[in-house]
Amino acid sequence: MNVPFVETTFYVRYAETDAMGIVHHSVYPVWFEEARSEFMRQRGNNYAEVEATGYLFAVTGMDLRFHTPAHYGHAVTVRAEVEKYLSRGFTFAYEVRHAETGQRLVTGRTKHICIDRQGHPRTIPQWLREVMEGRA
Amino acid sequence: MNVPFVETTFYVRYAETDAMGIVHHSVYPVWFEEARSEFMRQRGNNYAEVEATGYLFAVTGMDLRFHTPAHYGHAVTVRAEVEKYLSRGFTFAYEVRHAETGQRLVTGRTKHICIDRQGHPRTIPQWLREVMEGRA
Amino acid sequence: MNVPFVETTFYVRYAETDAMGIVHHSVYPVWFEEARSEFMRQRGNNYAEVEATGYLFAVTGMDLRFHTPAHYGHAVTVRAEVEKYLSRGFTFAYEVRHAETGQRLVTGRTKHICIDRQGHPRTIPQWLREVMEGRA
Amino acid sequence: MNVPFVETTFYVRYAETDAMGIVHHSVYPVWFEEARSEFMRQRGNNYAEVEATGYLFAVTGMDLRFHTPAHYGHAVTVRAEVEKYLSRGFTFAYEVRHAETGQRLVTGRTKHICIDRQGHPRTIPQWLREVMEGRA
Repeated sequence: MNVPFVETTFYVRYAETDAMGIVHHSVYPVWFEEARSEFMRQRGNNYAEVEATGYLFAVTGMDLRFHTPAHYGHAVTVRAEVEKYLSRGFTFAYEVRHAETGQRLVTGRTKHICIDRQGHPRTIPQWLREVMEGRA
Repeated sequence: MNVPFVETTFYVRYAETDAMGIVHHSVYPVWFEEARSEFMRQRGNNYAEVEATGYLFAVTGMDLRFHTPAHYGHAVTVRAEVEKYLSRGFTFAYEVRHAETGQRLVTGRTKHICIDRQGHPRTIPQWLREVMEGRA
Repeated sequence: MNVPFVETTFYVRYAETDAMGIVHHSVYPVWFEEARSEFMRQRGNNYAEVEATGYLFAVTGMDLRFHTPAHYGHAVTVRAEVEKYLSRGFTFAYEVRHAETGQRLVTGRTKHICIDRQGHPRTIPQWLREVMEGRA
Repeated sequence: MNVPFVETTFYVRYAETDAMGIVHHSVYPVWFEEARSEFMRQRGNNYAEVEATGYLFAVTGMDLRFHTPAHYGHAVTVRAEVEKYLSRGFTFAYEVRHAETGQRLVTGRTKHICIDRQGHPRTIPQWLREVMEGRA
């Protein structure tokens, strides 16, 4: 069984900064998403393959708290874990830290529902649930 | 005195869409910010000029709810209003609607504190408060 | 008949700036694209509707020259015109100017081919050619 | 002495795709920039540290050719090398490949000049030239 969370570390990109000299706040949802992608990859499943089966994970909500700004030149570690499973969705929680100092930068949460190509809510199939729980 | 909110309407950009064929969820904070910029402009003040005086508005938190996806080819209207004033900050609330049908797409909120160039929290000066309240 | 070019004016978004305090160079292709969207809209056709008919305009190349940086707080005008028509594609040329001073900021060019949903090159249909040429 | 080029491999982010289901063409300049960052890091120098000394590398031009689209779910390898050194600038050349198949996706070039904080062109200092050439 896999650990119930994933961590991924990468460098801040210059394009992600703004005129305040810090990472723009709209960038963190992109990092969260990349952590979810890594979450799936570490479970042996690419989210691209999941989508190909007709199941999509739509984002229905998110909230973020910005504790300390991230800067270009630093590496950041994004930790993502499934906080809650529902029959048709789930909630991810995140923490972004400075990779070297460990300082907490941003925390947040995203909510998702499983939909089909037509946008209709769907129960998460058993195989996909097992992939996400690391039991597949 | 100005109305206590602002509305700005623009077209969805193609680059703002993702492989699901909808506007990516990380784009809405950018639209919120653009509505705040318009809020300042309608009060006769450019946020760029505010920054030049040494006062910056840092984002300390945000939460969003995604009701219905936006698509390329549509115009959207973003409504922004100051929901709450604090001595050192304020909260904005937003609603993104389909410009033609009026359908509600996304709602959200951002929290801000006033800081100086060194990142220290500062009381919002009276002149800036008056600008934001439309009394200047 | 429509004029052979389009101009669209909008404010620089804060999120489009970087830590150098200027608009990041990767933003200009997005502005070019928005000018192409406006080009189609002014010809009474939404590119979203064109895509719905099964014809897509893939970008095959682009080149840009950065003369003077754009900053947050300014409005910019993007001029786009079809520079060359080919049987299966076309070339657009662009000029980005400071909306108030008229100062030239960036010039560029994008090349496009017409493809179908499967990615195969297609001859641009007569109706679409007429739309683009403003004769429809 | 370092090799005269750098390669960096990473996964396509979902946010980088567009409604055509492929990576949006404005993303590649961001990847090019990230490869330049890696180029500096592999030479033991962070571009953030270079900027702190007062030397900035402004982008004065770029051109890209899009051969084959990149998709979410794939890893890409970006190769960057200094193509030409000038007294006040340099040119980088890039190739983006599918990391597994090696298929060429995008090629391009960016031109840079060295400027100071006031935006004035500056001769690249000897220490910085040596860093970039891998002789430091």
